[in-house]
Amino acid sequence: MIELSLVGIGTGNPDHLTHQGVAALNAADVILIPRKGDNKADLAELREALCAAVVSNPTTRIVHFDMPVRDSADANPAHYAAAVNRWHDAIAEIWHAKIRAHVPHEGKLALLVWGDPSLYDSTLRIAQRLKLRLALQVSVVPGITALQALTGAHAIPLNDINAPVTITTGRRLREHGWPASADTVAVMLDGECSFRHIKPAGVRIWWGAYLGMPEQLLLSGPLADVAPHIVQQRQTARAAHGWIMDTYLLRRAT
Amino acid sequence: MIELSLVGIGTGNPDHLTHQGVAALNAADVILIPRKGDNKADLAELREALCAAVVSNPTTRIVHFDMPVRDSADANPAHYAAAVNRWHDAIAEIWHAKIRAHVPHEGKLALLVWGDPSLYDSTLRIAQRLKLRLALQVSVVPGITALQALTGAHAIPLNDINAPVTITTGRRLREHGWPASADTVAVMLDGECSFRHIKPAGVRIWWGAYLGMPEQLLLSGPLADVAPHIVQQRQTARAAHGWIMDTYLLRRAT
Repeated sequence: MIELSLVGIGTGNPDHLTHQGVAALNAADVILIPRKGDNKADLAELREALCAAVVSNPTTRIVHFDMPVRDSADANPAHYAAAVNRWHDAIAEIWHAKIRAHVPHEGKLALLVWGDPSLYDSTLRIAQRLKLRLALQVSVVPGITALQALTGAHAIPLNDINAPVTITTGRRLREHGWPASADTVAVMLDGECSFRHIKPAGVRIWWGAYLGMPEQLLLSGPLADVAPHIVQQRQTARAAHGWIMDTYLLRRAT
Repeated sequence: MIELSLVGIGTGNPDHLTHQGVAALNAADVILIPRKGDNKADLAELREALCAAVVSNPTTRIVHFDMPVRDSADANPAHYAAAVNRWHDAIAEIWHAKIRAHVPHEGKLALLVWGDPSLYDSTLRIAQRLKLRLALQVSVVPGITALQALTGAHAIPLNDINAPVTITTGRRLREHGWPASADTVAVMLDGECSFRHIKPAGVRIWWGAYLGMPEQLLLSGPLADVAPHIVQQRQTARAAHGWIMDTYLLRRAT
């Protein structure tokens, strides 16, 4: 039996790590760390620094694997889902090879998952594929999500009293507009400033990039006023750092 | 200036605490802990045990305060909001008195917030009231939410690929039915098994109570099959422990 622990590590602040996360990393025989060539957005260095800071078990080994490249984005939603599925298949294949090489019979693996394994993350789906090939037990250690890092940094509640919140993606916001059943919308996986597709009257935005990291950027205010500043800051920061991760909350007056 | 740190502590597993949370508690002059008479659901003992386990600063003091009683639930949503507002006013009044007594001029306060301060929690709104009365700086330390503890315990993703999720309350689910814009709905603050008001065909449920605690209960499956078991387990567990906290995820086939 292989035990695979998916450890949520939060959003770039090493102090987001929980005691449970530290224990799971120290219980692992092997910690798998992804690399995407020389892409800074793979955050391999941050994952390695985090392991160096908290892993004290001398028998725990770090093993790197190269992330396959995903087919470039396709506007057709059906094609998009198929491309994501093929990508997950390819990653599962690579994990399988690493497990056979490093933990051939039984043992404990850990993967450091950005944010929390439950939220817009593919690790659980990839692990599901592995279950078809080997005796695998998957456990999840919750971590701080980008949404919590965002609301925490702005010191705001996610929801209004007794009110719902919809979490969605930039792509969905562009294609479907404001979700029908909530006046608060949290947007993730948005590389295209999709808030520009929303009518800004009566809408406030709370935006954050590099949340939890020293580079953290925050902007908030009426969408009409703040949107151009976000677009500009995002462009400047992305150029300066070579990558960006950001998320935002939209709330409309009721 | 008074600095108030709202520290998310997760859902009852002391190991949900982050390094950032431990640091914030140790930086505090005073940690405020609520008590609700002899109500076990105040979890005062758990908060005290948590402080005893991680607070090593000898100058940090624990100060208790009595939570006021909220007017009993009213079916009229307008009355409900007013009752919640009066309750928050009353709590702000009590915090103010404790601050004047224990940190009269300047200093650092911390409050241990169940889950995360952003999600269906009133602490940020109460702190906002205090800002009208004294020079107060509020910071938030994110914590693991019940939703993450739920998806983590079931080892499932919250969202489908590129799909939205609506987080709502039991009351909203009863009054408004299934939210229009998402096939995944996370339900919180539900003391009435409101999933019984949903047509169960094609719907799966993942339910959890006492998440992260030794008493943790989990049930999942087709809503039609599992709903009666949840109602029964909930009743039995509540009678046995004197209180219950639970949450669940509903997903309908697309």
